[in-house]
Amino acid sequence: MKFSIKKEILLENLNNVSKAVSSKNVIPVLGGIRFNLTKDGLYLTATNNEIDIESFIETKLIDKVEELGSIVIQGKYLIEIVRKLPNGIINIEVVDGLKIILYTANSTFNLNGIDSSEFPNLKIEKSTNPIVLSNKNLRNIINQTIFATSTQESRPILTGINFKIEKDIMECVATDSYRLSKKIIKLDNTVDNIINIVIPSKNIGELIKVLEDNDDKVNIHIFSNKILFEFENILFQSRLLNGNFPDTSRLIPSEFKFTIKANLNELYEVIDRASLLTSEKDKNVIKFETNGNILTISSNTPEIGKVEEKLAISKDNSENIKIAFSSKYMMDALRTITSTNVVILLNSDITPIIINNEDDDTLVELLLPIKTY
Amino acid sequence: MKFSIKKEILLENLNNVSKAVSSKNVIPVLGGIRFNLTKDGLYLTATNNEIDIESFIETKLIDKVEELGSIVIQGKYLIEIVRKLPNGIINIEVVDGLKIILYTANSTFNLNGIDSSEFPNLKIEKSTNPIVLSNKNLRNIINQTIFATSTQESRPILTGINFKIEKDIMECVATDSYRLSKKIIKLDNTVDNIINIVIPSKNIGELIKVLEDNDDKVNIHIFSNKILFEFENILFQSRLLNGNFPDTSRLIPSEFKFTIKANLNELYEVIDRASLLTSEKDKNVIKFETNGNILTISSNTPEIGKVEEKLAISKDNSENIKIAFSSKYMMDALRTITSTNVVILLNSDITPIIINNEDDDTLVELLLPIKTY
Repeated sequence: MKFSIKKEILLENLNNVSKAVSSKNVIPVLGGIRFNLTKDGLYLTATNNEIDIESFIETKLIDKVEELGSIVIQGKYLIEIVRKLPNGIINIEVVDGLKIILYTANSTFNLNGIDSSEFPNLKIEKSTNPIVLSNKNLRNIINQTIFATSTQESRPILTGINFKIEKDIMECVATDSYRLSKKIIKLDNTVDNIINIVIPSKNIGELIKVLEDNDDKVNIHIFSNKILFEFENILFQSRLLNGNFPDTSRLIPSEFKFTIKANLNELYEVIDRASLLTSEKDKNVIKFETNGNILTISSNTPEIGKVEEKLAISKDNSENIKIAFSSKYMMDALRTITSTNVVILLNSDITPIIINNEDDDTLVELLLPIKTY
Repeated sequence: MKFSIKKEILLENLNNVSKAVSSKNVIPVLGGIRFNLTKDGLYLTATNNEIDIESFIETKLIDKVEELGSIVIQGKYLIEIVRKLPNGIINIEVVDGLKIILYTANSTFNLNGIDSSEFPNLKIEKSTNPIVLSNKNLRNIINQTIFATSTQESRPILTGINFKIEKDIMECVATDSYRLSKKIIKLDNTVDNIINIVIPSKNIGELIKVLEDNDDKVNIHIFSNKILFEFENILFQSRLLNGNFPDTSRLIPSEFKFTIKANLNELYEVIDRASLLTSEKDKNVIKFETNGNILTISSNTPEIGKVEEKLAISKDNSENIKIAFSSKYMMDALRTITSTNVVILLNSDITPIIINNEDDDTLVELLLPIKTY
């Protein structure tokens, strides 16, 4: 393998695959990036057994191709070297089978390579009828649900985001069993069979880092045990979680006794301040109490102190309600809301709290109350 | 104690003293900020037994003073509360001796106070003949020396910066015994007796965070066991280290066989890249070798790889030299250089390396070579 390429182009593509470079040193080849220079161009590939990323550089973007071939280069050092080289042409050459020479006019790096036959066979496949979403849409879905996934390994299925697709409706749900976040999207295309998969949240969290926030399209290829996101010149594959995601549809009440509206930013700030004097061991619990059109948010942790905040709201019911919940979970939910006013739907102090956008019911945030007596 | 004050003013002064609020919970009162409201104004004070900071708010900057008095408030919660309150007036009132109520139009916080008699007696004193420096000058002196202090507690005196003043010349030295950084300043005023003190680097590191980067003046009051920095409305006091700082004057050679000049940024980048393939356990050693007007910087760590970098230099001696040193220490030294070209002075591969600004000999960086054979 021998070729010459502009630093900026190589660096951008190395950064794309870097999210799949393993930082654990157990299996050396997983800490590497496979370079595969073919007549079509250069394929850079990395895998950590959770996600596989391939970034492709077409031949026309490569300044000079002198010899095709492939090799695995340790990712950690390589990315730092390329990042710190001045802009300009970088030459990469394999000599004596496994020795890599990377050089510019004034710098010469000798690195040890690994034979590319040791690199895992990733089987990156495309389906015939992919789902198509814009980058921006996919990013929003992920950002609006990922925080509600569980971090506990006791129920592994809850550490992922559930994607359920029926015809042209896609429903994305995450829950840690104390709260739930659900987003519904109408797709441009229709699927024949019902799709019901769970993607590990850690893997999909890496996807957002590579996915730009624009209107470009992502093709999503779904298989029974893996999912492939195809965008720009990048293929991003993740394994899926095994098991059945719980049916959460019955958790969300269909009727509510109280519909409360508040200014989103004001409510967030009030809860943020009340949260200051709560403690994590008490689940950051705060109290929410209406008195006509005045909402009082309060917390009391004897060893620290207590706080009481007041806020004007609108309410459709002349009765009052008192309910307690985790301030952290409420703030997480409020951060997904995009309307000026937020809608809070309640029935009683022991039934789920629903948080919605004012004028859009495709996003549902659910939060269980905490009993404080 | 009862008063009302603008949020921005209170927050700025709380931030000033926050660097002396202890984060360890061993002695609760050290985690607090003492509020002392007198007829002159409000004194905010914090101490962690290493440094004491007092920030003063004159009465004319306080919106309403209703009752004088003093109390200690837990710093950690208080600063977060004030930071998160909206801009506007904050009212603070002590009730029942030790209960603090902090309130605005819509928020009420109840906090537990500590009797101010429990707060340490700090004895913050001024001398009659302080040394005067500009903020900017003092910041530069600290930044150009602090990195060379030792982090090892085996020789505690080397964990501080030595300030030696004779007449109107101040010499600041830091060394960890492998490298040394020295800055000489001509003062506007003259001291009668020789001053020779060592300030803990950790404490002076906190001073830089409070000291703005401008031409305002700092008055420095020096005592046998403590030092007081007086600037704006702030008093910043630090303890001194006990013991004699080693005499380092004979370490710096007065004559050199080689005077090498290189572009500062180019040399820094070349060493930065060569450093990538070094390892900390081998002291990040790199080799420096001249060949006429070409400098070769190289490193070789068999398990990672090797690198060779070339750079054009100017040199006053037709002989060549080969020397090895820590790339990290050299980069630390180069970061203090402010001229376009850096001057490197050498005698042999086993004598100290001196790094200077091109046209200013008040800053001296010294680095010991490493034997590699």
